[in-house]
Amino acid sequence: MKTHTLLMPLDMHLHLRDGVMLEDIAPLSAYSFSGGLVMPNLVPPVTTKEELEAYKERIMAAVPNDYFEPYMSLFYKNYDKAFLESVCDSILAIKLYPAGITTNSEGGVSSFDIETMKPTLQAMSDLGIPLCIHGETDGFVMDREAEFMSIYELLATNFPDLKIIMEHITTKAAVDMLDKHKNLYATITIHHLIITLDDVVGGMMKPHLFCKPIAKRPEDREALLHVALSAHPKVMFGSDSAPHPQHKKESCGCAAGVFTAPIALQLLCEVFDKYDALDNLQSFVSDNAQSIYGICPEFKEIVLEKVPFVVPHNYSHVVPMYAGETIGWSIQSVE
Amino acid sequence: MKTHTLLMPLDMHLHLRDGVMLEDIAPLSAYSFSGGLVMPNLVPPVTTKEELEAYKERIMAAVPNDYFEPYMSLFYKNYDKAFLESVCDSILAIKLYPAGITTNSEGGVSSFDIETMKPTLQAMSDLGIPLCIHGETDGFVMDREAEFMSIYELLATNFPDLKIIMEHITTKAAVDMLDKHKNLYATITIHHLIITLDDVVGGMMKPHLFCKPIAKRPEDREALLHVALSAHPKVMFGSDSAPHPQHKKESCGCAAGVFTAPIALQLLCEVFDKYDALDNLQSFVSDNAQSIYGICPEFKEIVLEKVPFVVPHNYSHVVPMYAGETIGWSIQSVE
Repeated sequence: MKTHTLLMPLDMHLHLRDGVMLEDIAPLSAYSFSGGLVMPNLVPPVTTKEELEAYKERIMAAVPNDYFEPYMSLFYKNYDKAFLESVCDSILAIKLYPAGITTNSEGGVSSFDIETMKPTLQAMSDLGIPLCIHGETDGFVMDREAEFMSIYELLATNFPDLKIIMEHITTKAAVDMLDKHKNLYATITIHHLIITLDDVVGGMMKPHLFCKPIAKRPEDREALLHVALSAHPKVMFGSDSAPHPQHKKESCGCAAGVFTAPIALQLLCEVFDKYDALDNLQSFVSDNAQSIYGICPEFKEIVLEKVPFVVPHNYSHVVPMYAGETIGWSIQSVE
Repeated sequence: MKTHTLLMPLDMHLHLRDGVMLEDIAPLSAYSFSGGLVMPNLVPPVTTKEELEAYKERIMAAVPNDYFEPYMSLFYKNYDKAFLESVCDSILAIKLYPAGITTNSEGGVSSFDIETMKPTLQAMSDLGIPLCIHGETDGFVMDREAEFMSIYELLATNFPDLKIIMEHITTKAAVDMLDKHKNLYATITIHHLIITLDDVVGGMMKPHLFCKPIAKRPEDREALLHVALSAHPKVMFGSDSAPHPQHKKESCGCAAGVFTAPIALQLLCEVFDKYDALDNLQSFVSDNAQSIYGICPEFKEIVLEKVPFVVPHNYSHVVPMYAGETIGWSIQSVE
């Protein structure tokens, strides 16, 4: 039987939510991942040291049985340097959302005015705090990420020592940026390696594959696959696993987000195996992130096997990607 | 109060379904339209004279209180000339579906082999039976209509005297074809004059705006508006109003179709008024179709007024476009 072993897998873009949802879904990530970069877009967003520490405690309390490191992030707004100094040991990154661009992002940045942002960004650069960005404009849905490239360029050029992570990239335009600026990095989800817009609205309409940024064209997916499968040193796995209660996905105004946390490693094995690239998966799912963020997660070993796995119809009240369908790989053991 | 009068409005692409659904929704079209070209994609599709006549009788029985002419169409397959001669007085057109491309199209054309289709198409040309086509390939969802242009060209060139109607066009590519081949015509829906893909998946996911062909890019909508508002003589209104029961729209695999029949004229007035083109609406919604198809509907006069109308949440078990929202025009009277 074909197996594949992963060491210290990391999910560098993860929504754990809060309250009952946190308690329901955090254990699913903690089971198979060594750690994850936890997004700060709660209601209200995480913007103070107290909120940060309290949220981390709630996460730790939700995963009592597994070793799992919740790498914390702060919701971007303009902060002063003294504050950033006081929190920089408690966070791995600051996450920037353009205002209103996705779930719980209303308090985000409404104008990318470099002069206004400069004190914060320069302090982050000086303190070595990476900037993670949800890079979309408010333009036409298929163009939003590509239109954002000029803002990435502006930031990368003005703050050459600031590590900027283009989160959950979905386009060839974003892939092409990786080699243009030394300080630009990216996360890629598993679903954007698998689906295109065709899977979302090409046949029936599929709410559980609806996310932001929306899946793009076949040539975009090819570009993402190229850098993921080759484990380009500037790309990392980040699931963007984004749970919503079932009724919010299956209704007239379906919320955006694909829930993949409990099947992410199995799907990654399936995709990398399909393209004969399993040897590169360790870098994509852990080593690159360790280098980029300078982190050393504690030891965890996951053995996956090429044995069919029937994805549950739901985890608590959350419907995962491929609910009820059979995928090609399973988790054999976790140590 | 601003009013606008329309004479003998025609809906040249209409799904009336069958059974209870037919009884529920046919009166809504019959109330405000003089007639409509009824699509033949029932289960099984309408392919014989007996089915055609029986379906027409069921439609007439469903609209006892209004004068409404159901212009009948046959589902395209290869027919011999004797059969076509026997039905040509009973139909206005034959509708071609590529196999599997939309609702109930499984028995459609799987390969556009001109030699195989020639006897049927030449007989249609000789008998003056127009060919209506759902023009989409099975390619990437945003490219399907544009990719179909080569098939339109092939058919238009090989059968120069056959009237070919590109149904429910959604792209600039299709608009550009209108002036390239004298025997190509088009219908345009009201929803494709209003929405783009942004409205379907740009914010929340909106199942009631999900249809095939899917709404495209802003520049495509602009091209459609240009020919509709100017009442290009080769374009006609066809709602493609496509009812599905509410539970089939609001579920994990939402069916394709936007239900607009009862609000189509109000929305047309709103759009044409917005662009100061009300003078051209009569041509778009009736006169052009009369010329293209050579039909003379009986007299019907609809007066619309610029008075807000709250769209019902549903008509029987069907949710219309803009359910619960307010649109700018109402029907004042029908005579």
